[in-house]
Amino acid sequence: MKTKLVAVLLSFGLVAVALAEITPSKAIKWRQSGYAVMAWNMTRIKLNLEGTFNKQEVIAAANTIQAIANSGMGSLYLPGTNEGLGWEETRVKEELFSDKEGVAKVAKAFNKEANAMAKVAASGDLNAIKDQFGKLGETCKGCHDGYRHED
Amino acid sequence: MKTKLVAVLLSFGLVAVALAEITPSKAIKWRQSGYAVMAWNMTRIKLNLEGTFNKQEVIAAANTIQAIANSGMGSLYLPGTNEGLGWEETRVKEELFSDKEGVAKVAKAFNKEANAMAKVAASGDLNAIKDQFGKLGETCKGCHDGYRHED
Repeated sequence: MKTKLVAVLLSFGLVAVALAEITPSKAIKWRQSGYAVMAWNMTRIKLNLEGTFNKQEVIAAANTIQAIANSGMGSLYLPGTNEGLGWEETRVKEELFSDKEGVAKVAKAFNKEANAMAKVAASGDLNAIKDQFGKLGETCKGCHDGYRHED
Repeated sequence: MKTKLVAVLLSFGLVAVALAEITPSKAIKWRQSGYAVMAWNMTRIKLNLEGTFNKQEVIAAANTIQAIANSGMGSLYLPGTNEGLGWEETRVKEELFSDKEGVAKVAKAFNKEANAMAKVAASGDLNAIKDQFGKLGETCKGCHDGYRHED
């Protein structure tokens, strides 16, 4: 019983620490930042496919997208952050918090294609990279369509 | 001669594409986002070290920092972006553009410690992770002190 009480108190303590450091505003700012970093890296891959192809840059870009895709950004969708100000007002739709099954599906598809993108980038096969870039872009769109308000 | 001319025209074309897609404002926004994502992941590692340690979360966080450290963010310091608005007004100091040797030194130190952080996180050795987290934090500070205006 005493152990359980300590565990409960400890867990309250942890929540307090977490709340002190990860405020709703920070959570919104950090997730907006994650998407912005991915937008940069998608843009870079696109520029490489349209212009001079630099394998090392494409690998670095794909690795960055992959790491963010696997970083657990879902934890930044704290209760109550369906609205609020990060860098700017969040554009998340209410559905992201309610449609758990649908979100899991688009998140899984995105992770799969992001992991495949990093693998294909490392191969240096230009046609495969083009194909995979298209597939990855579709999974970004899949989430934007359902869970993000347009500009 | 003709080949050279084509090459020159192509390279102008590429610059035009790059300028069209990577505007100064976007470059500033994207680099601010990169630092914000790293701040999130440093905070997560800190919370794990102070509270319940979740090895998988620490690995994901360290991998994200490593990928961004190796992403080539230096390319986002376009000429003329020593001032300007991204998510907010840039805080970069003029020295980042002029002190190439000093910048290379802090960037190299940061990359080294970020790579080591990912390696140490994968090992799961709590004491080694604590030590490495401290070393990595010092290299963040190394750049902030010299090249970023304080709030």
